[in-house]
Amino acid sequence: MTQLKNDRLIRALLRQPVEVTPVWMMRQAGRYLPEYRETRRKAGSFMQLCTTPELACEVTLQPLARFPLDAAILFSDILTIPDAMGLGLYFAEGEGPRFERPICNADQIKTLGVPDPEQELRYVMDAVRLIRQELAGRVPLIGFSGSPWTLATYMVEGGSSKDFRTIKAMLYERPELLEQLLATVAESVGLYLNAQIRAGAQAVMIFDTWGGALTPSDYCRFSLEPMQSIIESLQREAEGQRVPVILFTKNGGQWLEAMTDTGADALGLDWTTDLGDARRRVGDQVALQGNLDPSVLYASPEHIREQVAKVLASFGKGNGHVFNLGHGIHPEIAPEHAGAMIQAVHELSRPYHQ
Amino acid sequence: MTQLKNDRLIRALLRQPVEVTPVWMMRQAGRYLPEYRETRRKAGSFMQLCTTPELACEVTLQPLARFPLDAAILFSDILTIPDAMGLGLYFAEGEGPRFERPICNADQIKTLGVPDPEQELRYVMDAVRLIRQELAGRVPLIGFSGSPWTLATYMVEGGSSKDFRTIKAMLYERPELLEQLLATVAESVGLYLNAQIRAGAQAVMIFDTWGGALTPSDYCRFSLEPMQSIIESLQREAEGQRVPVILFTKNGGQWLEAMTDTGADALGLDWTTDLGDARRRVGDQVALQGNLDPSVLYASPEHIREQVAKVLASFGKGNGHVFNLGHGIHPEIAPEHAGAMIQAVHELSRPYHQ
Repeated sequence: MTQLKNDRLIRALLRQPVEVTPVWMMRQAGRYLPEYRETRRKAGSFMQLCTTPELACEVTLQPLARFPLDAAILFSDILTIPDAMGLGLYFAEGEGPRFERPICNADQIKTLGVPDPEQELRYVMDAVRLIRQELAGRVPLIGFSGSPWTLATYMVEGGSSKDFRTIKAMLYERPELLEQLLATVAESVGLYLNAQIRAGAQAVMIFDTWGGALTPSDYCRFSLEPMQSIIESLQREAEGQRVPVILFTKNGGQWLEAMTDTGADALGLDWTTDLGDARRRVGDQVALQGNLDPSVLYASPEHIREQVAKVLASFGKGNGHVFNLGHGIHPEIAPEHAGAMIQAVHELSRPYHQ
Repeated sequence: MTQLKNDRLIRALLRQPVEVTPVWMMRQAGRYLPEYRETRRKAGSFMQLCTTPELACEVTLQPLARFPLDAAILFSDILTIPDAMGLGLYFAEGEGPRFERPICNADQIKTLGVPDPEQELRYVMDAVRLIRQELAGRVPLIGFSGSPWTLATYMVEGGSSKDFRTIKAMLYERPELLEQLLATVAESVGLYLNAQIRAGAQAVMIFDTWGGALTPSDYCRFSLEPMQSIIESLQREAEGQRVPVILFTKNGGQWLEAMTDTGADALGLDWTTDLGDARRRVGDQVALQGNLDPSVLYASPEHIREQVAKVLASFGKGNGHVFNLGHGIHPEIAPEHAGAMIQAVHELSRPYHQ
């Protein structure tokens, strides 16, 4: 077991005292960094980058070389699981992700296999192991997966969607069939995250990008319930340490109470919910992660600093805040602007922990 | 003054008793109707359709010829005001709306004129007058405008935007300049809606499509406050009748209490908020309009009926519900599916009003 040199993230996720608020950024390893674009070019394709552990490790570590971030997050795609199920993930130039063989009928759902993470997804586990080795205990490594509902939208729609017409028609017309699909995906996600934990992930996050497109009751049944079953299946301790679980539903600000009841250690928040209000609603049950609007980073460093100050003030004094953007960093952001945000978090948060 | 043959909409917006729940659909005059596509083709361009009162009237009335809707809504574009300000609205094929001369600097904001609705926007007022004449009191006519924040996003970004990078940079760096722009737009919207009311609109709705992209405090300052100033400026009675005002912020479910305090008669809701919860939060201060997920209309008529029943049940018994979609009807929906929804609302809502 490696002792972490900087364990602020883990402590904040577990609502333990820290000296400054830890900070990381969703998509911190990504296109806004020229060094990422260079590695991506070398790799030849995005899939090659994801499936080559050495390259995934390289890009995971790039933002840490630039910025004093308090966590690394595994570089991978959220659609690795459906790809391992045989749906044939590919990226058409200038478009989003697509599947060669999307889910079109009940038979496919009934025969869908649960991938063995150390077989079909071994490249992810190898990346986790390599990153842990290269990190050498500097900061914790966060593992992640898409939520079952989010993965299912891509699997059924065949790619990105604006209105989720096919999966919503399934939801209304054959809800039990959708539940069957979600159960298979949830089982796969549970195995995948446990394998990441065994390979060395020190915290895990479930990204529910599209749960916010549902009605409140459909969210509970088709997105939250499968996420709860995953959380219940997770190994919550490794290397003698608690492995915190972060749950993030984009546009889920109305449902924080229900999310809190899943047993997650922390909830991710986008910028449409005030952190102080959220804290009053969830009490001391969970930590909160967020929630600077990523578009703030288009402003100048001095104005970025002002907005960081507002987010810190909205959470206020005390334990249980991990600073992050409310969504992934945009590809057009200047790296110095990300740096200004990170520096401001560390400098301005100190008084909140005294 | 014409006595309305069907005034359910007005009564429900004012929380007065009705025998069945009134129903209309956002974008009910639109691309999902073959007769609309035919008129659009005849018109030659979308702008020609908007600026020719006879054609705007024709498409406004098309859905009423098909379905027993309880309201007509003026067919127009939300960007008529910035166009009248001289920004040069156009529609590039396959893209969204664009401006030839977007707002790029402080000077433009300082010299921006407030259009006279009976001059530069006379074509809209002529359409309102013509539609009222053709409706002959069958159902009320709803007038509308985009919200100042929503209009400003297009004016500053030059068109649609995913991340609102330019206007958000302005918001953080020069908030007082943005407020000046919003004040000019708000004044223009107030005059525009009052002119629509004088021309014959019997209810008006403010569409705040992009307010939900803001933080809670920025929403209050940059979207809600200008909308409140509009509502305060509106003529609330015409032809001896109260003219109800409907406020709709997409993704605004977290802010209903603040929206209620604007003095609006009714709030529009998207499908991410439960109508029953919303009703408990706003009490008897406002009526509620919504909130079937438009993607429900991809399902079969029998399943559409089930989902209509759920929405009606979530509001429950009593006054103050106008049935609508939670957002505009999608262009790919079969008209019969819209018809199934409307029929279900009228049939299934009767017990809630006994």
